[in-house]
Amino acid sequence: MIDVSDAYESLERRFRRLDILKQAEGILHWDQSVFMPSKGASARGAQLAELKVIGHEIITDPEIECLLGEVDPTALDSWQQANVREMRRIWADANAVPADLVVAHSKACTACEAVWREARANNDFASVLPTLEEVLRLTREIGEVKASFLKLSLYDALLEKYAPGMRIDDITLVLNDYADFLPSFLDRVLERQEREHPVLAPMGPFPVDRQRKLMRQLAETVGLDFQSARLDESLHPFSGGIPEDSRITTRYDEDDFADAMMAVLHETGHAMYERGRPAAWRGQPVGHSRGMVIHESQSLLVEMQVCRSQEFIGWAAPMLKASLSGEGPAWESKNLYRRAIHVNPGFIRVDADEITYPAHIILRTRLEQAMLCGDLVLRDLPGAWNDTMQELLGITPSEDRCGCLQDIHWYDGAWGYFPSYTLGAIAAAQIFETAQTANSDILPSIADGNFKPLMDWLLKNIHSLGCLYTADELLEHATGRPLDPTSFKAHLQKRYLC
Amino acid sequence: MIDVSDAYESLERRFRRLDILKQAEGILHWDQSVFMPSKGASARGAQLAELKVIGHEIITDPEIECLLGEVDPTALDSWQQANVREMRRIWADANAVPADLVVAHSKACTACEAVWREARANNDFASVLPTLEEVLRLTREIGEVKASFLKLSLYDALLEKYAPGMRIDDITLVLNDYADFLPSFLDRVLERQEREHPVLAPMGPFPVDRQRKLMRQLAETVGLDFQSARLDESLHPFSGGIPEDSRITTRYDEDDFADAMMAVLHETGHAMYERGRPAAWRGQPVGHSRGMVIHESQSLLVEMQVCRSQEFIGWAAPMLKASLSGEGPAWESKNLYRRAIHVNPGFIRVDADEITYPAHIILRTRLEQAMLCGDLVLRDLPGAWNDTMQELLGITPSEDRCGCLQDIHWYDGAWGYFPSYTLGAIAAAQIFETAQTANSDILPSIADGNFKPLMDWLLKNIHSLGCLYTADELLEHATGRPLDPTSFKAHLQKRYLC
Repeated sequence: MIDVSDAYESLERRFRRLDILKQAEGILHWDQSVFMPSKGASARGAQLAELKVIGHEIITDPEIECLLGEVDPTALDSWQQANVREMRRIWADANAVPADLVVAHSKACTACEAVWREARANNDFASVLPTLEEVLRLTREIGEVKASFLKLSLYDALLEKYAPGMRIDDITLVLNDYADFLPSFLDRVLERQEREHPVLAPMGPFPVDRQRKLMRQLAETVGLDFQSARLDESLHPFSGGIPEDSRITTRYDEDDFADAMMAVLHETGHAMYERGRPAAWRGQPVGHSRGMVIHESQSLLVEMQVCRSQEFIGWAAPMLKASLSGEGPAWESKNLYRRAIHVNPGFIRVDADEITYPAHIILRTRLEQAMLCGDLVLRDLPGAWNDTMQELLGITPSEDRCGCLQDIHWYDGAWGYFPSYTLGAIAAAQIFETAQTANSDILPSIADGNFKPLMDWLLKNIHSLGCLYTADELLEHATGRPLDPTSFKAHLQKRYLC
Repeated sequence: MIDVSDAYESLERRFRRLDILKQAEGILHWDQSVFMPSKGASARGAQLAELKVIGHEIITDPEIECLLGEVDPTALDSWQQANVREMRRIWADANAVPADLVVAHSKACTACEAVWREARANNDFASVLPTLEEVLRLTREIGEVKASFLKLSLYDALLEKYAPGMRIDDITLVLNDYADFLPSFLDRVLERQEREHPVLAPMGPFPVDRQRKLMRQLAETVGLDFQSARLDESLHPFSGGIPEDSRITTRYDEDDFADAMMAVLHETGHAMYERGRPAAWRGQPVGHSRGMVIHESQSLLVEMQVCRSQEFIGWAAPMLKASLSGEGPAWESKNLYRRAIHVNPGFIRVDADEITYPAHIILRTRLEQAMLCGDLVLRDLPGAWNDTMQELLGITPSEDRCGCLQDIHWYDGAWGYFPSYTLGAIAAAQIFETAQTANSDILPSIADGNFKPLMDWLLKNIHSLGCLYTADELLEHATGRPLDPTSFKAHLQKRYLC
């Protein structure tokens, strides 16, 4: 029998250990992506797998369930209560699904991902169909087990991993609203864009060492302190590390500095969120960031809302020009701004602008629901993909590698992941609008290259709250209302049609 | 009750996990020394401490003792039997000392190290005396507990951590033999050196990026493959990582490339040993390197025996000259060779040449034994240091920062560590002599920049044997006799007086 008064403390000790294991995994992942020599891959995989197993043993120790049962909420303050709520969520996520099902799913995903890489290269969806069927079957099985454990619908149960607390019914309202808004809005934006004179591309080459220096300056401008952060290079940009030691990455293209720049600003937005997590709770579940939707809202707020604004680009243009020895009209701030907000409907999600990006997400969210519930069989996916693309953006991919083969997510088992991207973009607009209303100095300061008023507001209203609230509650606490697309649509109207 | 037939397998599983935890710690250490931003230090300390605690819980789990008792050696092959012997050794090392004593010692060392840094800077031995007394007291206490647990003398029990299986009585014979040999030999070498015309120093500056490229080439020449290795920079050069992913470091001085070069060759020697560990046993105790003496023998074999030889420098000189755009007589191979073997008795161990280095070790080994058994009280250490220095090398430090304050080891609790350095140098000579006798092609190949015959021999006779034998047995297996200083003395005679 466990001493009731010690139950909470014992839980904190166990979750602190889990947290530190995750931190160690994080550095091993970072090293793997940034510096590890190629032949170290297999040993690194074994290291990461073993740390995961140790973590799994800790969270599935039957004593955790006892301790969660023993905890007396009336003896706890609000942060501790929220901490226990998050512990329960993490515990449920790890304990809902039998270990052999997790292993089978993980193996199927690893196998499918490898086949998918070939299939995409060969534009051959049929070749990946059998392994994808297996991933879907096991994903559905996991979803069903979790749904019954968590008393949620199948899709909500899968969503719980990425956007805890969010429900597909609410999400569908938001996404459908945008789907209704998009076609005529997009027509008007494209019409107007065509009437204007063409956007000019600054001419490179832009030497990587100069880009590196510039990107460091930009990250510092947003608020990153390189005594407790690093900026390195990797195939795919990402943000890792811990609040005291942020590790962000980008990649450099000698012909176009904008890719590296937008990646650095995006990842710095993620890092600033992590760095603002409540110091007293950092090793505990309640001290973590509030899921993918809020995380993406913070990166997109910096990248899309702020750093593609006229104010920011007006400030940045002379600095970019000087750092990269630019010359001519392409470097004028008006042109750089128009380049940053150029709209170009296309087949590829990761290349999409902020207006058409949600269409890519709506498509995927609709189709993955249909596949999970059996309304869409996998062999019909390519056709359904192309039909939905035509419906939403008026274009049809000529081949599957530009269609249903483009993203790793489904093949790698990440079902329920996609909505977070667009919900994050919508939340970013809602949060940024509120911040500006609360402090009218925020945007003028950005025009001076000063992010402090913005970051102070975000720290107080989002970052430092960790998981004290659910994502919905946090948005309501910060903006006065639940997530809805009005701010996002207003932002697009203002940026693209005013 | 544990199933006897599974006992061995269960032990292997537990030690594999310990090994992987150590691998993860290794990368975190490497990152800390090479890339971590300064403000990440405290969080990194917490990560490393937690991984250590997890490892400690695994090795002190009472089930390990049961399993070690259950194992049936007659059912095991020779590698498995050696594996169990090493498991017992690691288990005894971790379980001999009560956890609270380990913690008290570790805290005292951390405190003393900080005071020592100040004391060394201020040349003030008295200020570190009280904290060093505490370190010595707890070190002695640990030594006594281990001595009774392992049935060894106090000093041998401490030695066990660094040079397992080696005994101070044997070591003393070797060191005293050298102490007798040194004075008249050194006189003759210095006399001869003075008669020759002065050594010329190649003039820099040597740009760091060119040195970096050169050091990579040299490491590759020895045998490092950069698809499974990295060479980076850190304050103190070291060798880390795993066989599939070696991580060596050096530091660059724009005025002198020799420091970086000798550090890289030394660390590559360490790395080659690790890379040659038996592949089938790498995750197990028996698959590890055979302690510090053998490890140091491999780095010193490469650095001292091979890379300060006329043969190697004859090959390297034109390459160094071309890589660093050198000009003039300083770059002639004869001059570079004389520079590499220049003898200069001094106060500082880490700057010592190969002839006088053992004197620094003999001094420390004698004094630490005297302090541990109480024959020398700490307040008399400075005087005893200076007297012994005078006796061995005929020089007396003018201040304690060049004397008993110079090394971190005692202040950081590493008592029993020093002998390994010189035993490694002596073993290197014995091993290299045997290798050349076995394959007369080894030295001529070095003169062509070809290390393969040497590395093949080392792989077969040292590296690939892991911990199948004890260090003494390994030396006897490889060279036909136990460790003795005859090869080392013969090497010095040949290099410095022929």
